[in-house]
Amino acid sequence: MSRYQSIIDQKTKPLGSLGQLESIALKIAHNQQADTLTLTAPHMLVFAGDHGISQHNISIAPSDVTALMMNNFLQGGAAINCFARTLGWQLQVIDCGTLTDIDHPQLIKNRLDHCCGDISIEPALTQSQWQQTEAFTEDYIKSLHQTGCNIVGFGEMGIGNTSPAAAIAASLLNRCAADTVGVGTGITDSQLAHKQQLVQQALDRFNNNNSHSPLDTLLHLGSFEIAHLVAAMLSAKHHKMLMIIDGFIVTAAAMLAIKINPDCQKWMIFAHCSKEQAHKAMLESLNELPLLDLGLRLGEGTGAALALPLIQSAVSFYNDMASFSDLGIEL
Amino acid sequence: MSRYQSIIDQKTKPLGSLGQLESIALKIAHNQQADTLTLTAPHMLVFAGDHGISQHNISIAPSDVTALMMNNFLQGGAAINCFARTLGWQLQVIDCGTLTDIDHPQLIKNRLDHCCGDISIEPALTQSQWQQTEAFTEDYIKSLHQTGCNIVGFGEMGIGNTSPAAAIAASLLNRCAADTVGVGTGITDSQLAHKQQLVQQALDRFNNNNSHSPLDTLLHLGSFEIAHLVAAMLSAKHHKMLMIIDGFIVTAAAMLAIKINPDCQKWMIFAHCSKEQAHKAMLESLNELPLLDLGLRLGEGTGAALALPLIQSAVSFYNDMASFSDLGIEL
Repeated sequence: MSRYQSIIDQKTKPLGSLGQLESIALKIAHNQQADTLTLTAPHMLVFAGDHGISQHNISIAPSDVTALMMNNFLQGGAAINCFARTLGWQLQVIDCGTLTDIDHPQLIKNRLDHCCGDISIEPALTQSQWQQTEAFTEDYIKSLHQTGCNIVGFGEMGIGNTSPAAAIAASLLNRCAADTVGVGTGITDSQLAHKQQLVQQALDRFNNNNSHSPLDTLLHLGSFEIAHLVAAMLSAKHHKMLMIIDGFIVTAAAMLAIKINPDCQKWMIFAHCSKEQAHKAMLESLNELPLLDLGLRLGEGTGAALALPLIQSAVSFYNDMASFSDLGIEL
Repeated sequence: MSRYQSIIDQKTKPLGSLGQLESIALKIAHNQQADTLTLTAPHMLVFAGDHGISQHNISIAPSDVTALMMNNFLQGGAAINCFARTLGWQLQVIDCGTLTDIDHPQLIKNRLDHCCGDISIEPALTQSQWQQTEAFTEDYIKSLHQTGCNIVGFGEMGIGNTSPAAAIAASLLNRCAADTVGVGTGITDSQLAHKQQLVQQALDRFNNNNSHSPLDTLLHLGSFEIAHLVAAMLSAKHHKMLMIIDGFIVTAAAMLAIKINPDCQKWMIFAHCSKEQAHKAMLESLNELPLLDLGLRLGEGTGAALALPLIQSAVSFYNDMASFSDLGIEL
């Protein structure tokens, strides 16, 4: 038994009675290799991007809504703002390439273009856009780490981004589009059929491609914000930061990051199970049981935000709870 | 559609995309009849008691551990203390009748006796002990309310108290002891068989009794701390306080409180699904979907404590999130 498991088992409670909070505490203890764990300056990073595939009208809202919601984030009025304020996250919004170039002092920018490729007919991004993404996120995550942050939440915004997430999930799970394309935030049946067809078209195109490396999967089936998520996860692992993974789209990015560097997973906590149909299968393929299952299907990092107090509570029992020996009891 | 539902539906998010947090916000809005909701001075009340049935060695620990854990609570070293500090609950411990009469300035006392009756052979408490419980809790909850508290969490401690909870659940769900008696915090197979037999004996004894009113169920199959929980819930309803219900034992008390006054349920939020086997069926009988399912089986109010940030987040989106009209968009 590890030193950290025995610290947990010495606490004044029946063995295992704190359930998943014990697994979380153990995971963090193994990462931090410490008898006292710390979570400092939690930052929620919301990566935003627009999507070529959105021109096919397969979302509940037009691409204009990406910019509208980014402005909402920057003005503090979205769900993720409310949760960040209530729960103690510092929120940062990153423009990875959107149709409207917003000017705002708090907006962080690494615009790869105004919109990623339409994956039903072409790759989402180029090798050189990926290099720009990697260079940016490494600097960005490093600077967060240097300010004392050791825990980052990952969220996203981008009308149309359940399509690349479904394509990535289908490719990595060896499924077809019908298994992984869901209703997103609430489209009609005919939109759903069209969305499935377009994602299947993307998969067929990709399957005719020679290489199926994780990076090729990302370039062909991903998007600007998913590329940023993958690159940021690789950097966060490098800087030994705990990562809180949100729902369907962020999990698709996490699967790619884990394919590229399997050690990433040790630093990830999966926050919640989304209502989007394929999410459960994706989590199971990673052998991960998420902390929450609240029927959320909003994105923005909302599920990841809500998990923070549970993770803080896991750390608090590990750090501060009395042990049997503290009470003079021998086991 | 209610005014409060339309406030929720006007928020800048797809309809229903905040899942259970929307139901929680709606419940609180209906209770508080307000466009701005408040949660003030959350108090976690941990009711402790000892049990006649514990003399049969059907728990993982002897009754001495009730006092030991109460001292742990009073010294700040238990899981519930860690969670209360981390999440912003004020913790209060109430001695409802335990084998050791602890002297501590922070301990609140309404000792009905040193131990409740052994329900396998006799009632848990008398009519006059119930009257003493009601009088105490009404004063106590009223004074909490007067200090500005409008949200209370309910927890419990008492070696042996899964037995009365299982007896109450079996009686109210028309099941036998084998369906509701579980392993508690981790007993052996032979202890489990003996525990089932004793609880069935209590049920058989009670079924030969003439009246099966909720109060009779409580007096015959309950315990000191369960009686306090029931009475405190009735008072909290009276003072229009939101109640956060913990696991198996507190849910058994909630079922009785709801039988006595069905309006209680409107003021209750069920925090989590415990690992104790019957808890799921109990929640389903109330048509309640709990917020968390973390494999907890500790009690102390730990599950209720962990739910607070989710409830605060529900209130925050209801109060503070921008509406479509705030952004100048007509639906």
